[in-house]
Amino acid sequence: LLLCYLTGAWSIPDPRHREALIQLEAFMQTGGQMVLTEAEQQLDALLFKMKQEETARAEFPPAVHFFKARDLIRTSPIFKLLQKMPKGGALHVHDFSMVDVDWLVQNVTYRPHCYMCGTDNQSVRFIFSAQTPRPLSHCSPWVLLENLRAKMVNSTDLDDRLGITHNLTLFTSRDPEVVYPTQDVVWEKFEQAFLAVWGLVTYAPVFRDYFYQGLTQFYVDNVMYLELRALLPEVYELDGSTHSRAWTLKTYQDVTRQFTTNHPDFLGVRVIATIHRGVNASVMAGAVEEAMELKKSFPDFMAGFDLVGREDRGRPLWYFRDALSLPAEKGITLPYFFHAGETDLEGTDVDQNLLDALLLNTSRIGHGFALLHHPVAKDLSRKKGVAVEVCPISNQVLKLVKDLRNHPAAALMSESHPVVISSDDPAMFGASGLSYDFYEAFVGFGGIKSHIGSLKQLAMNSIRYSSLESEQQEKALGLWQRRWQKFVSKWTFSK
Amino acid sequence: LLLCYLTGAWSIPDPRHREALIQLEAFMQTGGQMVLTEAEQQLDALLFKMKQEETARAEFPPAVHFFKARDLIRTSPIFKLLQKMPKGGALHVHDFSMVDVDWLVQNVTYRPHCYMCGTDNQSVRFIFSAQTPRPLSHCSPWVLLENLRAKMVNSTDLDDRLGITHNLTLFTSRDPEVVYPTQDVVWEKFEQAFLAVWGLVTYAPVFRDYFYQGLTQFYVDNVMYLELRALLPEVYELDGSTHSRAWTLKTYQDVTRQFTTNHPDFLGVRVIATIHRGVNASVMAGAVEEAMELKKSFPDFMAGFDLVGREDRGRPLWYFRDALSLPAEKGITLPYFFHAGETDLEGTDVDQNLLDALLLNTSRIGHGFALLHHPVAKDLSRKKGVAVEVCPISNQVLKLVKDLRNHPAAALMSESHPVVISSDDPAMFGASGLSYDFYEAFVGFGGIKSHIGSLKQLAMNSIRYSSLESEQQEKALGLWQRRWQKFVSKWTFSK
Ligand SMILES: [Zn+2]
Ligand SMILES: [Zn+2]
Repeated sequence: LLLCYLTGAWSIPDPRHREALIQLEAFMQTGGQMVLTEAEQQLDALLFKMKQEETARAEFPPAVHFFKARDLIRTSPIFKLLQKMPKGGALHVHDFSMVDVDWLVQNVTYRPHCYMCGTDNQSVRFIFSAQTPRPLSHCSPWVLLENLRAKMVNSTDLDDRLGITHNLTLFTSRDPEVVYPTQDVVWEKFEQAFLAVWGLVTYAPVFRDYFYQGLTQFYVDNVMYLELRALLPEVYELDGSTHSRAWTLKTYQDVTRQFTTNHPDFLGVRVIATIHRGVNASVMAGAVEEAMELKKSFPDFMAGFDLVGREDRGRPLWYFRDALSLPAEKGITLPYFFHAGETDLEGTDVDQNLLDALLLNTSRIGHGFALLHHPVAKDLSRKKGVAVEVCPISNQVLKLVKDLRNHPAAALMSESHPVVISSDDPAMFGASGLSYDFYEAFVGFGGIKSHIGSLKQLAMNSIRYSSLESEQQEKALGLWQRRWQKFVSKWTFSK
Repeated sequence: LLLCYLTGAWSIPDPRHREALIQLEAFMQTGGQMVLTEAEQQLDALLFKMKQEETARAEFPPAVHFFKARDLIRTSPIFKLLQKMPKGGALHVHDFSMVDVDWLVQNVTYRPHCYMCGTDNQSVRFIFSAQTPRPLSHCSPWVLLENLRAKMVNSTDLDDRLGITHNLTLFTSRDPEVVYPTQDVVWEKFEQAFLAVWGLVTYAPVFRDYFYQGLTQFYVDNVMYLELRALLPEVYELDGSTHSRAWTLKTYQDVTRQFTTNHPDFLGVRVIATIHRGVNASVMAGAVEEAMELKKSFPDFMAGFDLVGREDRGRPLWYFRDALSLPAEKGITLPYFFHAGETDLEGTDVDQNLLDALLLNTSRIGHGFALLHHPVAKDLSRKKGVAVEVCPISNQVLKLVKDLRNHPAAALMSESHPVVISSDDPAMFGASGLSYDFYEAFVGFGGIKSHIGSLKQLAMNSIRYSSLESEQQEKALGLWQRRWQKFVSKWTFSK
């Protein structure tokens, strides 16, 4: 197919030849081979008009930092349509950044027994405790939030003034270029916000509610399935006692069951156990052993294993090759879902993670931002059907790319490379669910040329490249298909 | 080669297999197949150390806007090395942005009979005239600069305060993000600066001197050959009389001969006649006819034809297909060197220029910034050996990309796509010659992984993909090779 258009030297271009090449290129892009129903074609015509209007706006949202673009996006008719669209599954989402920060502040920090302290570096820490907790180093004395709030005239004011809200997220209404001038600054703030959230969400009652609320937010955004990257912490109770990782995983499973009972059209959750890439080789070996155990105990609920944390500062995958080879050595199945290529440090050890993830037989690639710089890894990913989990807003906020039209996934989607769209840490970025990231991908990566087929393909990819068994995938596709048809016909009728 | 590494499913990665894939990827990049001499390997080791130091700097220059990065780059040892390096030819340079602005101010505006007026939109216009010129609409009355300067205490001050200097270039020491917030603003300023320069450089005595000075600046930057995109204006004399386009082309030839006589190791110049893409179809047809005539009259000096001006606002190539098919219809050779894909308006009519340039049998592609979004065009460009003229600083200043590590040419060079590096309009951007753009390409596109072989390949590409006949190319390569060897041995001995 790719070779047939090379007809040697020509002189005057033949319009039919040109048209054929244009069609070929359209055919090659993600969703280009979709056969569209009449209703889908109608919706596509509408979408095309919307896109043209979107492009004509004074500010083109995908070219603007998401913190400034969010309000623009919210007023976009395309965004409203994407919110309603059944998007399939969210395959790259982290455990403690699923739920928007306002919910955390209003529903969690107002609970009894919530203590807070302020760290030396302007962040905060929380803990729930029956009595005053032991002091934390590099943190002010603990104060009970209900006492503090009782003294204030306006407790909402406290949330802002004490910095509760802004310490739990990267999102800011100030100029993000000024607040976060470099990758180092934004990652430092990211890690601090993560630690601030930690004490709130690892408290057992909150842990359950947080996850249920997280599922709710994805569900109302018309996401029907989730693969959760989870640190599986030792969750604590009010008396300071803690639970095992297996308990944590079991709790995720229980909450998921409860959620699917209440929402039968939600397909469920699978968990990818994660560990920070800052650990040493023997800690990693222990974590892999434990993950193999968990996979044995929860064969359907646990999807696999991954490493998290800033790639540029952590150890490369190859450093952990012995630990990561343990499952293969022992003949035990532990699928990998490695973050790899979330970097612009071209040519360094970290930059080899993409290739190493593939050599370690990863099932998908988290981010893969550097993939275009690695033609061998790119080719392997395509030929092995290892999908790239593209998280546009995350990459923009963490300063890998400014104008999302230049995101490498735009090139990958031009040639139908296997990709899925996800949101990574939506609460950290002031987003929620998948719709904002779908907006950036659809409008930003695709420009005028992406269409209803691209959206359909992306949603189907999220099932096709999930960790679900093929029978489960069939079932999921069937369910998604029915919701998609309803979505398309509703939208075309309402216009 | 590309298929042999797919060895099916494996379990524990084999370090030799990994090493082979890493080598394969290194082999695939631009210059990856170069066999290096011992001296080159020594220089490469030095370069590698320099690169590591460059990456460790607080600010990484390719990630910073060139206006702010220029001082950083000037202090870089890599830049100093690149200045000395014989870079081959500059294949994408425009006629009236070759010479730095200070030269224009100091050597041109101080000449007698130089009049200036200030336009309604804060720009300036110039004209040389024996008597007071006729008033220009939307411009203040003409003032003779020597009269104005005679009244000033400090004439340098006048150059700055009257805005002479800053009106002739985009370069500014103020924050470029503030001065040029959008593509529209920066392109408007670009066009105004171009019009301001116009009256100075189309005055016959200046025209000659400017071109000679332009050649000098490229020559001292160790560029040995130039292909000039030239509008071939009707150059004027002090009495207001004007010359024909043929005269202009002939003058370029004469100045080139004079320059090569004075600098026998400079290979020469070829001219690509250009016209603004804002014209209509019949004007274009006339321009193509005229270009065919000129090509007949100057078969060796005239290289071909191109369209200039902002692609996003101009007419697409396909609109001009009849005019551009004239040479083929008449069986006359008029090579094309089309600007194409200097856009982020994906999926629009303008975005088809890349494919159409190739269908119209272009010899090279100017910019090709959008090429990664067009897999068919990309494949055609590769298979037909149509090189992409990559101008990194131009694309950054004109706001197509911020962090040059995300420039699409980084991906193209990862797979050895035919590219050359050029500087487009160096004077507009505060650059000069090719070294700044080579710096961005070498350090920014390649990261740690590009090496002396990449540089060698880029220099050789600039001869290989020039419009020179194959015998001339052989001669040029031989000359370059000798200078290269001298450069390598000098550099390795001096360390
Ligand atoms: Zn992630
Ligand atoms: Zn140009």
